[in-house]
Amino acid sequence: MQFEPKIKNYKQKVEDSFKLQKFMDFIGAKLVKVEPGFCEIHLPYNENLTQQNGYFHAGIISALADNAAGYASLSLMEEDSSVLSVEFKLNLTSPGIGDLLIARANVLKSGRTLSICRSDVFAVKNGVEKLCAASQATLIQVKKE
Amino acid sequence: MQFEPKIKNYKQKVEDSFKLQKFMDFIGAKLVKVEPGFCEIHLPYNENLTQQNGYFHAGIISALADNAAGYASLSLMEEDSSVLSVEFKLNLTSPGIGDLLIARANVLKSGRTLSICRSDVFAVKNGVEKLCAASQATLIQVKKE
Amino acid sequence: MQFEPKIKNYKQKVEDSFKLQKFMDFIGAKLVKVEPGFCEIHLPYNENLTQQNGYFHAGIISALADNAAGYASLSLMEEDSSVLSVEFKLNLTSPGIGDLLIARANVLKSGRTLSICRSDVFAVKNGVEKLCAASQATLIQVKKE
Amino acid sequence: MQFEPKIKNYKQKVEDSFKLQKFMDFIGAKLVKVEPGFCEIHLPYNENLTQQNGYFHAGIISALADNAAGYASLSLMEEDSSVLSVEFKLNLTSPGIGDLLIARANVLKSGRTLSICRSDVFAVKNGVEKLCAASQATLIQVKKE
Repeated sequence: MQFEPKIKNYKQKVEDSFKLQKFMDFIGAKLVKVEPGFCEIHLPYNENLTQQNGYFHAGIISALADNAAGYASLSLMEEDSSVLSVEFKLNLTSPGIGDLLIARANVLKSGRTLSICRSDVFAVKNGVEKLCAASQATLIQVKKE
Repeated sequence: MQFEPKIKNYKQKVEDSFKLQKFMDFIGAKLVKVEPGFCEIHLPYNENLTQQNGYFHAGIISALADNAAGYASLSLMEEDSSVLSVEFKLNLTSPGIGDLLIARANVLKSGRTLSICRSDVFAVKNGVEKLCAASQATLIQVKKE
Repeated sequence: MQFEPKIKNYKQKVEDSFKLQKFMDFIGAKLVKVEPGFCEIHLPYNENLTQQNGYFHAGIISALADNAAGYASLSLMEEDSSVLSVEFKLNLTSPGIGDLLIARANVLKSGRTLSICRSDVFAVKNGVEKLCAASQATLIQVKKE
Repeated sequence: MQFEPKIKNYKQKVEDSFKLQKFMDFIGAKLVKVEPGFCEIHLPYNENLTQQNGYFHAGIISALADNAAGYASLSLMEEDSSVLSVEFKLNLTSPGIGDLLIARANVLKSGRTLSICRSDVFAVKNGVEKLCAASQATLIQVKKE
């Protein structure tokens, strides 16, 4: 789908918000791409982020999926607004095994108040991407006071 | 609901699995209570776990909700089995503002293959608990080879 | 949870809206109870409502769950408002076998714009209720023009 | 995604199951297309299927989405098996206004036990399709006894 951003500096706005998320810095996540209605986040493997089998923890996978959805939505929102996640649903389709996680989110619908996104997470091993989580999320635009 | 565990050492089994999750240690989460079909996890506030407003990050909240659901389910599973999250859905009902997060999960249905849980996360501020996330999850029992 | 309705005639408002839903009449569903933040709907068995095994169809079960959630939310909304479902997630916990379906929805959070509900559906056989679906829903208040 | 069906007569199997669903006949739904990992169902407008504003009822929309997901999954399952919905999550992206509903489901992952699908519903008005619901579902293969 093609979307027209409402503000010129939508990329800067997303980057500024991402930088304020200490948790993204703490785990080593990078904001890699922002387009109108799209966002991509990368996260290199790190032992601290694992579950009992040494794979990426589902909490990390969902954090990435949720964040990508939030910023894909924010890229289409108005000047004096921020974004909050209302809810999301995530299917874990395969274990998070790999050197890198990539989350890619696309806006399905950008309404006046609510946005709906699909956000998928891929685990990359030896250069091959495998879908490890598929999610669908609802986000809300919040006007800054 | 009252559940009968299938194995005597269900608590030990959950504690052993929890200890193997490096991510839980990394963020400072503690397994506080395990009962048949129930699990409670606590997480003290830490600046590293925050989003752009300084509140607990939604990814952290969902990691806790998911883990509590997984271990509530595992407490009712068979000897040579482990648990995997199939999917979960989480509503963020209020910002994660507080000194402590508490996740409490209850099994709704424990089937032969699949378990269904409800897992809620509360933010505690000045000793008062407030619901910050409500989730519903599907888990699968995996036989160890 | 205890909720205070914003309008006196919240029951009437819910009943009026329910009557306008031809689909509820078509399948034979009855609005049985409305309280602040709560709604209960009943549906007697009818062969027309079945799936391939002769049980209540999942679509019927979700229609009931969704409607109960909508009206539980509407009971707490303002005078000149109606309710729309934003999304819902439903786990089918056991087959819909019985003479009657009962959907019961409780509001978890009633915000200015959005409401979050849990709505469960029970199949009643020989007078015994069994949980056949557990759902969680997000609803939005829409101001009438 | 490209999928290889496990049985030759996958279409016949889906058609046979669809015919047994009295609810689909009751509302006038037609199975229009079955391919490996894909299913499309159509439903013409009918006043009996409406909510309070005269639009397609969300319960009808979710019944269609759920059924298309189930049959997309069944098309990839083994000979002596049937399919059950484990859970689904559905966002209502716009009102169900139109002469026809079209549900299209695609399998995302077809595992040994579980399948994950995305199922979208479009309302067709004056020949133009508009997305009215986006869903994501988990299905389970059940061996016939």
